[in-house]
Amino acid sequence: MKKYYIGVDVGGTSAKFGLYAEQGSEGNVEQKWSVPTTGKDASDVLLGKLADSIKEKCVEYNIDMSQVAGVGIGIPGPVDDKGVVLNCANLNFGIVPVKDIMKKLTGVDNVAVGNDANVAALGEMWKGGARGYTDIVMVTLGTGVGGGIVVDGKIHVGSAGAAAEIGHITVEPNETESCGCGCHGCLEQYASATGVVRLAKKEINDHPESVLFSKGDSLSAKDIFDAAKSGDEYACKIVERSVRYLGIALSNIASVCDPQLFLIGGGVAAAGNIIIEGAKKYYDEYSLKALKNKEIVLAELGNDAGMLGCIRLAGAE
Amino acid sequence: MKKYYIGVDVGGTSAKFGLYAEQGSEGNVEQKWSVPTTGKDASDVLLGKLADSIKEKCVEYNIDMSQVAGVGIGIPGPVDDKGVVLNCANLNFGIVPVKDIMKKLTGVDNVAVGNDANVAALGEMWKGGARGYTDIVMVTLGTGVGGGIVVDGKIHVGSAGAAAEIGHITVEPNETESCGCGCHGCLEQYASATGVVRLAKKEINDHPESVLFSKGDSLSAKDIFDAAKSGDEYACKIVERSVRYLGIALSNIASVCDPQLFLIGGGVAAAGNIIIEGAKKYYDEYSLKALKNKEIVLAELGNDAGMLGCIRLAGAE
Repeated sequence: MKKYYIGVDVGGTSAKFGLYAEQGSEGNVEQKWSVPTTGKDASDVLLGKLADSIKEKCVEYNIDMSQVAGVGIGIPGPVDDKGVVLNCANLNFGIVPVKDIMKKLTGVDNVAVGNDANVAALGEMWKGGARGYTDIVMVTLGTGVGGGIVVDGKIHVGSAGAAAEIGHITVEPNETESCGCGCHGCLEQYASATGVVRLAKKEINDHPESVLFSKGDSLSAKDIFDAAKSGDEYACKIVERSVRYLGIALSNIASVCDPQLFLIGGGVAAAGNIIIEGAKKYYDEYSLKALKNKEIVLAELGNDAGMLGCIRLAGAE
Repeated sequence: MKKYYIGVDVGGTSAKFGLYAEQGSEGNVEQKWSVPTTGKDASDVLLGKLADSIKEKCVEYNIDMSQVAGVGIGIPGPVDDKGVVLNCANLNFGIVPVKDIMKKLTGVDNVAVGNDANVAALGEMWKGGARGYTDIVMVTLGTGVGGGIVVDGKIHVGSAGAAAEIGHITVEPNETESCGCGCHGCLEQYASATGVVRLAKKEINDHPESVLFSKGDSLSAKDIFDAAKSGDEYACKIVERSVRYLGIALSNIASVCDPQLFLIGGGVAAAGNIIIEGAKKYYDEYSLKALKNKEIVLAELGNDAGMLGCIRLAGAE
């Protein structure tokens, strides 16, 4: 009988599902779907919705629940090694034993729960830009900066479920503006979409010659990277600042855990090589000889990384 | 028949040996000795010396080599997960398969090799300041700054044997002076014995009122911490700078690997609470909420940490 795994990447606006059929050594995502989330539902309401959707789809696709070998769930907040979510602002969750609740709601015994950025790293290692590696760090440059660390093929969760909080590595101890977390000088203040825009806005009034000057409040990270690629001097300066701090953060990560490879993903990473080349340059400038010249590559799976990582987390091979 | 483990912590001036007898669940270091090293011997000469010393002492203590269940060796340089040393400036080693060579030279089949700072962390977890923990980071503040990371009870080696290079985390990207490694702004430039003295010397001529002023070239890290404890204003300012960067580095480490506890060891740590309290203050200032308030404690085993960690690395329980 065919064996299935279901991955659910839960976000503040939607939960992305993937149905994966394992057949011998060849696997395949047979179906994808999503359900809207509000970010405000009580945890039992949201988890009930997810379980209902799994059960409905199994009926629709003629899959008996006994064929579901595992369910993996990604949550945008810290998750401990027992599958308990420890406060998740994006979902309005306090301390919620997601693993146990989902076991009961689905009747599936094998439920695994992980942080969304961590499972995305696992997904990229399984099917994406880090295939063939076992020790990787993924950095997701989006509205904020997230991260995932995989050591020896397994997600490194950390003692408080807060490992790989890459966005909050201090890269500029003399920063005077506050990060969203309340600290000063976090990577997120320079390398997230919001951070790059913040950097550009600070001195934009001194640069009427820049194409960014006329953008006003609509200025986006994409505008800045596009302008830099076209040679706009001020945009180049801003990008250089941003990738310098990214390179420093990667170097600091390497000094701690010495991975085989870094993956850069998230919306900002759509800018592509301008980020990779800049990060490499500053990574090497700030790294110990034994750590220099590590591979830094773009993530490949986009929005599917988390869902695929959830499937892998549940045990698919 | 009694089972023994032998630990050898190799340094540039001496190798420290410990003979450990495992009897039921109670273990004991029965003998300690050391042999001088030059830091210049060819690797086969040095390793030959170590093996000879092990064999001589076993004869002296009436131990048959078949009773030696394991030999653990700590090396002051990067070591990969196969027990190969990858260049070690302190011992003048290139790439040396220490594990295989020592197996041949001693006839003991179970030889384990690790980086000295890593095995010291393991030693502290086994018998010292981190007893009862499984996920710790040890930072050694000596002439330089070293580190060891233990995850789930095992040393985290890293893909190039260069994990836990804590001393070379960038904490001040705007530093203009160079670290010994050639980079700028490494923790070692602020928190090592050399680093604290460097900080103090920079502005000492503007502070004739300080007790440090008259020390001249003999100024030591101990002088600075002692003066700070006595309330010398300039010394306090220097210590504050040093522990601020230490706290930032610990915070960055936590953002990557989220350990249960930090241990601070090495000669500089003899200054005691002034370092712990300062590091805690700045650690919390620069850390994400989920990571704040971690335990930061002094290491307890002093110079024996490495030797004990080697015994543990070899498999003693």
